[in-house]
Amino acid sequence: MVERRQNYRQQARPIDYLKHSVNKIILIKVKRNRLFRGKLEGFDEHLNLYLEGTSQIFEYQDEEGNIREEHENLGSIVVRGDNVIFVNLANE
Amino acid sequence: MVERRQNYRQQARPIDYLKHSVNKIILIKVKRNRLFRGKLEGFDEHLNLYLEGTSQIFEYQDEEGNIREEHENLGSIVVRGDNVIFVNLANE
Amino acid sequence: MVERRQNYRQQARPIDYLKHSVNKIILIKVKRNRLFRGKLEGFDEHLNLYLEGTSQIFEYQDEEGNIREEHENLGSIVVRGDNVIFVNLANE
Amino acid sequence: MVERRQNYRQQARPIDYLKHSVNKIILIKVKRNRLFRGKLEGFDEHLNLYLEGTSQIFEYQDEEGNIREEHENLGSIVVRGDNVIFVNLANE
Amino acid sequence: MVERRQNYRQQARPIDYLKHSVNKIILIKVKRNRLFRGKLEGFDEHLNLYLEGTSQIFEYQDEEGNIREEHENLGSIVVRGDNVIFVNLANE
Amino acid sequence: MVERRQNYRQQARPIDYLKHSVNKIILIKVKRNRLFRGKLEGFDEHLNLYLEGTSQIFEYQDEEGNIREEHENLGSIVVRGDNVIFVNLANE
Repeated sequence: MVERRQNYRQQARPIDYLKHSVNKIILIKVKRNRLFRGKLEGFDEHLNLYLEGTSQIFEYQDEEGNIREEHENLGSIVVRGDNVIFVNLANE
Repeated sequence: MVERRQNYRQQARPIDYLKHSVNKIILIKVKRNRLFRGKLEGFDEHLNLYLEGTSQIFEYQDEEGNIREEHENLGSIVVRGDNVIFVNLANE
Repeated sequence: MVERRQNYRQQARPIDYLKHSVNKIILIKVKRNRLFRGKLEGFDEHLNLYLEGTSQIFEYQDEEGNIREEHENLGSIVVRGDNVIFVNLANE
Repeated sequence: MVERRQNYRQQARPIDYLKHSVNKIILIKVKRNRLFRGKLEGFDEHLNLYLEGTSQIFEYQDEEGNIREEHENLGSIVVRGDNVIFVNLANE
Repeated sequence: MVERRQNYRQQARPIDYLKHSVNKIILIKVKRNRLFRGKLEGFDEHLNLYLEGTSQIFEYQDEEGNIREEHENLGSIVVRGDNVIFVNLANE
Repeated sequence: MVERRQNYRQQARPIDYLKHSVNKIILIKVKRNRLFRGKLEGFDEHLNLYLEGTSQIFEYQDEEGNIREEHENLGSIVVRGDNVIFVNLANE
């Protein structure tokens, strides 16, 4: 049995790192082979996201086995957090 | 380790943006290749939605590989929020 | 950034609309291509449902591509809310 | 907009109906084409279940398209509630 | 409508049964056709588990239709509870 | 019915074991046949993770049935906890 150190509350939470990306273009990998790229306008603790100027990138394989992308403009969207796999932070 | 700024609570939450769409027609992308289009009458913090005059659009590929749509009128429905991928806000 | 109006709490929550359907026959679209039809006896905020006289309708495609239905009588069941896609309210 | 009546808290919650089935054999339909049949010894608000003398029934289709069942004895198990689709209550 | 008896709180919760298996070898059925076998060192109310000396058993069907198993040693792992289907308790 | 011993709160929670891996390279098995390998910078009780220098390893089977891996550099990412199957702790 391991000793309990309660200090992980003093660390930054993973979600706190998103604050640096507000008003910047980020890339969000979502379930079902999709990516969203848009300007992050708001987020909450569930990783719900509000994005503006969003484009959805859908990845698929064509008949010859090449990876292809399909783009779709979505405008302003509210993404439900549970669809997110990971958020790629904007480079500073 | 990053400095902690607690100010993301002062931002609008993603879900707050839905308020502008109440009583308007919105488009909801849901899991399992479905779209709902209907008048938003109510919503809550789980993204549960109450819609009136809803039509369900089911997207599929026919034998020649074309994307086809099938429409179904659902009337008044309560959608459980965890089925939502994203909500496309009504244009103002 | 949008102004915050907290008034969506004053709206009816999506789940409140279910109250009109208690003791009535409703249709519930559930995940995995199933429908339940039964008398709504109780529900809670997770959309857990207690149904009596329930029949399950399973939709599938036969060898010629026709949509077929299979019915099964389930009697009294407790449905876990997270299986629900949407509830079709009883007509009044 | 609908009037708000808060009286659905006075109704029995769906999960309350399970109390009548404690110490009885129940049938639980779970995700991924499985059924559990066992004696209900305990449950909680997440629909986590503790079952004794459990048998798992796995339904599949054989090469000729017939529905077949495979049984497996599991003994005492703790089932995580989110795997449950519905619980078939014991007849009284 | 059924009378409400609040006594299911006095029953043992399903998760309480896991306490008898701490420091024992247990078998955990997880989603995506996997089993974990390891020594249970810790658990919480979400069914998050800390296991030592864990081996993962992946079940699959070979070309002749036989059920085959593949073993992999994982050492010490933290399993997120929502992957668990059920826990098979250690025999006493 | 089993006696209730409330002492599992005194045990270390599964998530507490992650603290030993902060600032170390860990391996995370995620859903949809993916692995992340990166330096753990932060985590929370949902198993949300903040990783730096992350590489994603995608496992697939080629035409001859061999298991192949594809690597992709992701840099700094916030992983939503519900994608995690298990975390392999860093050896000490």
